[in-house]
Amino acid sequence: MKGLTMFKNMMVSIALTLVSGSLLANEVAIAIHGGAGTITRANLSDEKAAEIIATLEEAVTTGHKALKDGEPSVKAIQKAIIILEDSPLFNAGRGAVFNYAGGHDLDASIMDGSTLQAGAIAGVSNIKNPILLAFDVMTQSKHVMLSGKGAENFAQSLGYEFVPQTYFATEFRRSAWERAMSKQQKDTQARLVDLDIDYKFGTVGAVALDKNGNLAAGTSTGGMTAKRWGRIGDSPVIGAGTYANNDSCAVSATGHGEFFIRYNVAADICARMEYGNKPLKQAANEVIFDELLPAKGMGGVIAIDNKGNVAMPFNTEGMYRASVDTKGTVTVAIYGL
Amino acid sequence: MKGLTMFKNMMVSIALTLVSGSLLANEVAIAIHGGAGTITRANLSDEKAAEIIATLEEAVTTGHKALKDGEPSVKAIQKAIIILEDSPLFNAGRGAVFNYAGGHDLDASIMDGSTLQAGAIAGVSNIKNPILLAFDVMTQSKHVMLSGKGAENFAQSLGYEFVPQTYFATEFRRSAWERAMSKQQKDTQARLVDLDIDYKFGTVGAVALDKNGNLAAGTSTGGMTAKRWGRIGDSPVIGAGTYANNDSCAVSATGHGEFFIRYNVAADICARMEYGNKPLKQAANEVIFDELLPAKGMGGVIAIDNKGNVAMPFNTEGMYRASVDTKGTVTVAIYGL
Repeated sequence: MKGLTMFKNMMVSIALTLVSGSLLANEVAIAIHGGAGTITRANLSDEKAAEIIATLEEAVTTGHKALKDGEPSVKAIQKAIIILEDSPLFNAGRGAVFNYAGGHDLDASIMDGSTLQAGAIAGVSNIKNPILLAFDVMTQSKHVMLSGKGAENFAQSLGYEFVPQTYFATEFRRSAWERAMSKQQKDTQARLVDLDIDYKFGTVGAVALDKNGNLAAGTSTGGMTAKRWGRIGDSPVIGAGTYANNDSCAVSATGHGEFFIRYNVAADICARMEYGNKPLKQAANEVIFDELLPAKGMGGVIAIDNKGNVAMPFNTEGMYRASVDTKGTVTVAIYGL
Repeated sequence: MKGLTMFKNMMVSIALTLVSGSLLANEVAIAIHGGAGTITRANLSDEKAAEIIATLEEAVTTGHKALKDGEPSVKAIQKAIIILEDSPLFNAGRGAVFNYAGGHDLDASIMDGSTLQAGAIAGVSNIKNPILLAFDVMTQSKHVMLSGKGAENFAQSLGYEFVPQTYFATEFRRSAWERAMSKQQKDTQARLVDLDIDYKFGTVGAVALDKNGNLAAGTSTGGMTAKRWGRIGDSPVIGAGTYANNDSCAVSATGHGEFFIRYNVAADICARMEYGNKPLKQAANEVIFDELLPAKGMGGVIAIDNKGNVAMPFNTEGMYRASVDTKGTVTVAIYGL
């Protein structure tokens, strides 16, 4: 009997070692997006599609390498997002859409699922990489959300270098702005004019699971073409455009921001997992297809749970997206399946 | 047998009439708050307590009368909140705290639980009743959240009259600002200085259920004394400071806003009801006592469900609060029980 007990204890010990070993070598995973909208093969040239795919792949593999090197998810997602902010192909950082006044207002947010710490900035005009400033709001201030000139004064206090507004400008976004302005000026009820949904798209974001099992999410955007009145969309709103909680999942959203705020999209996916015991994919699909779509709230999300499962649902024709799963499989896609 | 069937049908018909009668005459209920914090009998004079109680009672009974008169909840809560904004006793509208520069930035939000429509403004300086502008953002624009000068330009386009900053100033808030500024100036790490929690309190809000069974929530605040960098707290963040959904509940929060954003407080209470099948009181208590309190996130909420149940939990010494329940019972309270 004593021998049997010892044997049992040994087995328990081996089992525990296996469990803790698997925890230490937690598999990593990452997903990114570059916006959702009316993206079809008919309106995207092969050349531009190839550029977009190459940039998405560079961003997702850079983030994935950081995770494999043992960096925390909250750092890895910044590395991925910076590549998308620096590319003129996406509506974030360089390539951001023009606001009503012909300038650029940038929004970003980030959240650490291990601490529920978060940082966000809304309406900054001269910060090259808004996601870095959102991270500094989280780590270098007692606040979560800073806005406008005040947020730039905060950046200045940290020694940020400012870029001129011309840095963000691209011809592609300028012509979209000209079309939007002409449409708004024709409309006598300008307060209520509903722009084509594609004027609102192109936001970037990333979610990741690191070796320590920690989740993080981040989002960055130039907002909506020809936006005015200091409009704030979902991207800098924690709970709407970005949410991360190790107990459930990490989410970054892209789409018609007003709907994503009203439906509390990012946090709602986490809540359906945590309180409704839904698997990630089902929770994300319910919000995108059963809640947003009937309300005509167009867009999509990237989401990752604490096992490294990835979901990337969208209710538009396409969403620029990429992921590297726990097995190391790289996926890069534009159109719906 | 035929006689029995007729009798049965008659009984069913009477029962249906009773049910539909009770649906038509849905009982109404309302709850309001005027902020939470270190409110004890020792640091509040009997005279000031009496003034506060009288104003809370006026606000809650005004809102309740609107509901009894058949007005929608989204209108009734505005009537209650305007009384609190107009009173110098609360940190909203007149009586708002001073920001770092010695001025006032006001935030407000509102949500209609029957449509999930929402409106919010952040950082306006010259709007007498921010809750009215939040309502107009919801109903007169395609946006949910407007900020700063842009939000005031929107107000101007609607014909709003502007009040000077001196309208908001009170001696009580000026001396709190002077204490806060002297504390910040002594601190070399001003970016990270953590002010006394009481500098952050005094937000007002209301939640209600109307005769049609529709829920609504609204919140209005001057934010945090000596705030800078365009800091946005939880009050104008849909999901954090304010949320309403007929399927679950309506919530308005008050407290240390950064925590209320990170914990997605208002929407989380609704999610625990909707997906976790928790009753209102339990859902609200879990968030205030099991999530926020261990994280040192101080404050409270008022919440109402679609049956008219009211919960008003807080983890501070006191919370200015009042309610009229479905039976018409009026409650006005300041301290903990």
